[in-house]
Amino acid sequence: MEIKADAGDYVSIKLAKREVKGTILESYDKDIILVKLESGYNIGIPKENVFDVKVIRKYKGEKVKYDIPSGKGKPKIGLIVTGGTIASKLDARTGGVRALTDVEEFAKFYPKLFEKYDIKINSPFMELSENMNSSHWKTISKEVKKMLDDKQVRGIIITHGSDTLHYTSSILSFFLRGLNKPVALTFSQRSIDRGSSDAELNLECAAQFVLSNCAEVVIVGHATENDNYCYALRGTKVRKMHTSRRDTFKAINCKPIAKIGEKVEFLEEYNARKEGNEKLELDDKFSNKVALVKFYPGMDSGILNYYKNEGYKGLVLEMTGLGHVSSDWIGKIKACIKSGMFICASAQTINGSLNPKVYSTGREIEKSGVIYLKDMLSETAFVKLGWVLGHRNWNGKEKEKMLENFAGEFSEFLSE
Amino acid sequence: MEIKADAGDYVSIKLAKREVKGTILESYDKDIILVKLESGYNIGIPKENVFDVKVIRKYKGEKVKYDIPSGKGKPKIGLIVTGGTIASKLDARTGGVRALTDVEEFAKFYPKLFEKYDIKINSPFMELSENMNSSHWKTISKEVKKMLDDKQVRGIIITHGSDTLHYTSSILSFFLRGLNKPVALTFSQRSIDRGSSDAELNLECAAQFVLSNCAEVVIVGHATENDNYCYALRGTKVRKMHTSRRDTFKAINCKPIAKIGEKVEFLEEYNARKEGNEKLELDDKFSNKVALVKFYPGMDSGILNYYKNEGYKGLVLEMTGLGHVSSDWIGKIKACIKSGMFICASAQTINGSLNPKVYSTGREIEKSGVIYLKDMLSETAFVKLGWVLGHRNWNGKEKEKMLENFAGEFSEFLSE
Repeated sequence: MEIKADAGDYVSIKLAKREVKGTILESYDKDIILVKLESGYNIGIPKENVFDVKVIRKYKGEKVKYDIPSGKGKPKIGLIVTGGTIASKLDARTGGVRALTDVEEFAKFYPKLFEKYDIKINSPFMELSENMNSSHWKTISKEVKKMLDDKQVRGIIITHGSDTLHYTSSILSFFLRGLNKPVALTFSQRSIDRGSSDAELNLECAAQFVLSNCAEVVIVGHATENDNYCYALRGTKVRKMHTSRRDTFKAINCKPIAKIGEKVEFLEEYNARKEGNEKLELDDKFSNKVALVKFYPGMDSGILNYYKNEGYKGLVLEMTGLGHVSSDWIGKIKACIKSGMFICASAQTINGSLNPKVYSTGREIEKSGVIYLKDMLSETAFVKLGWVLGHRNWNGKEKEKMLENFAGEFSEFLSE
Repeated sequence: MEIKADAGDYVSIKLAKREVKGTILESYDKDIILVKLESGYNIGIPKENVFDVKVIRKYKGEKVKYDIPSGKGKPKIGLIVTGGTIASKLDARTGGVRALTDVEEFAKFYPKLFEKYDIKINSPFMELSENMNSSHWKTISKEVKKMLDDKQVRGIIITHGSDTLHYTSSILSFFLRGLNKPVALTFSQRSIDRGSSDAELNLECAAQFVLSNCAEVVIVGHATENDNYCYALRGTKVRKMHTSRRDTFKAINCKPIAKIGEKVEFLEEYNARKEGNEKLELDDKFSNKVALVKFYPGMDSGILNYYKNEGYKGLVLEMTGLGHVSSDWIGKIKACIKSGMFICASAQTINGSLNPKVYSTGREIEKSGVIYLKDMLSETAFVKLGWVLGHRNWNGKEKEKMLENFAGEFSEFLSE
């Protein structure tokens, strides 16, 4: 029979021996009706088994008006909404989540934030974080600069998908030179309309952080699986470490900058940047001709020719152990470097610092001109290389710049 | 002046105002003499500052004879030595480490092992682990099979460089079908002639493990930074997680199989394979036309053409979050799959399980035919894909085989 109901409609379906009620979901198989039951479970029903479908409630793309409360007398915070789960809600039509459609809808979902603070909100684009690239990073950094031109703004919160959030926090740490206000990126692993959503605590802690005087780019997120407190993690030393846990972001090769619960507690050993008289300068040059390449045993070094032929200017090789690739790569690495490519080494183990001097392979690779990036994360190394090679005026100084500690990307306390 | 001393010689060097004593190291700069002082520090002295050099003790490539004690009445263990730090020692000439030259020298370094057990030792090759590839993996597995043909042998210890040890433990878990004896791979992060060497405890714990009745391929290594106990970690669920720490190997998405201190304690929840009547069959097919590719934001999907043109049969894409790449990749992914390539998804976060159903990008990618490997590690996924695609007789069953739990590569208790 032909089914006269659409995704999102709440329906009653008559089968041979029983009737089921639920919401129709988008189905990828045209012969199956996919239904979300009241219990929350989804079932697939072959259309040939369906005797009748009655629409009980037609789906409406609901749009509720929300009046943003007055900010008078409240601390002023800039809020940049870029998409991701934190700006998404469950979609009745797919059973998955979809992006909120506008800034007002965002405000409606997080009323507490707008009641407590004077939120200056803008959304330059709405994008899932896996789709972001250097042009999005530039747009965000310009938006930060613009908002901070207003001296009343105490700091900036950026909401963003979690998948590539640590790439964005890293590149903003380099783009925003002379930063003198806090910038906190935050996210959620579960959308706000789920009971287990982590969005509200993350946002509230991000707000608290940007009212501090710590002029760093950080990621703020759940410190544990519970809803009790968050960490602020340095933008260049943080990585998404779990597909689904709410405390997915972890400080790597260092400690969190601060613990945020009732108040913001800075961890004593942390030498964080303070607000000062520096003037914020946007330095958002970026070369897209850089790549991050993970080495694995038996990997064919021919891949290096691909990057050379495609005109890549730099590579970060994610190496094994203290910084090794197989010996038969060394010749091709030398040839690439000779042809003008910059090749950097980062650690596949994630934790710890490289040291090319212990083993003969490392010594050979270092001799060939590879830049060993000590304990810098691979993801940070990739965006930093794009940033450094984006600067034509740094011609001849590329290695020096890669090894300069611009934004805490090296843990100075770690021995080499 | 011309210096008449060679690397490894213990010398006295006369400078303008003082004299220094130490061992000459190999120097990459012909104008600098590199000297290891008694204090352990290395210093570089410009040759032009040297007034005289006296050789106090000439370097000899020492070779000491060692008689392996009789194994009579002791438990019999197979030991396969493949190279790496555990089979290396400090090299006086470079200040780094170098491989032991023969099996006798290995026995001399680890006398306790040979006193306690009847060690049947063989070294099919001596290689640093970053240089290993599928042909080494095949050689090792053949050696295991050969040693286990001797029914007296209780289990096998394999010593191996730590850099790619988890790739080897994974592939052996697939190659050794119907395994009915314990196989423990072990390593060291510091060579045996350093005070802080982890080699001896790792070897002793590996020996204890292979005397158990657990017929699994495991990695045995330090559980903590102290020298008190080790873990046995399932070969397919383990990863090197630190460049230099001795407890570098960690169980991922599961717990260790056993704790090994005074005795071997199996963790109760673990459903480990027991010795039985199964017959060990070597199934060491492997296709080298597979690659592991880590995705990063802004990555050019043109790389997929490279792999297609080079005749690759399969790729593991290390995706972000729950299993995403940027939307503009989906078209090329579809084209690759249509041309017969197998594309699998693994998690860049390392921890957690993929779930393509939550977000639209994931649903689109899954629809394109990508095989989502749940909580399987990227490194395990790479070797398993090589193994599966090495089987011509599995034609048409590749996806089914990738999703079959052969060697605990999926944690069954994790929900999708």
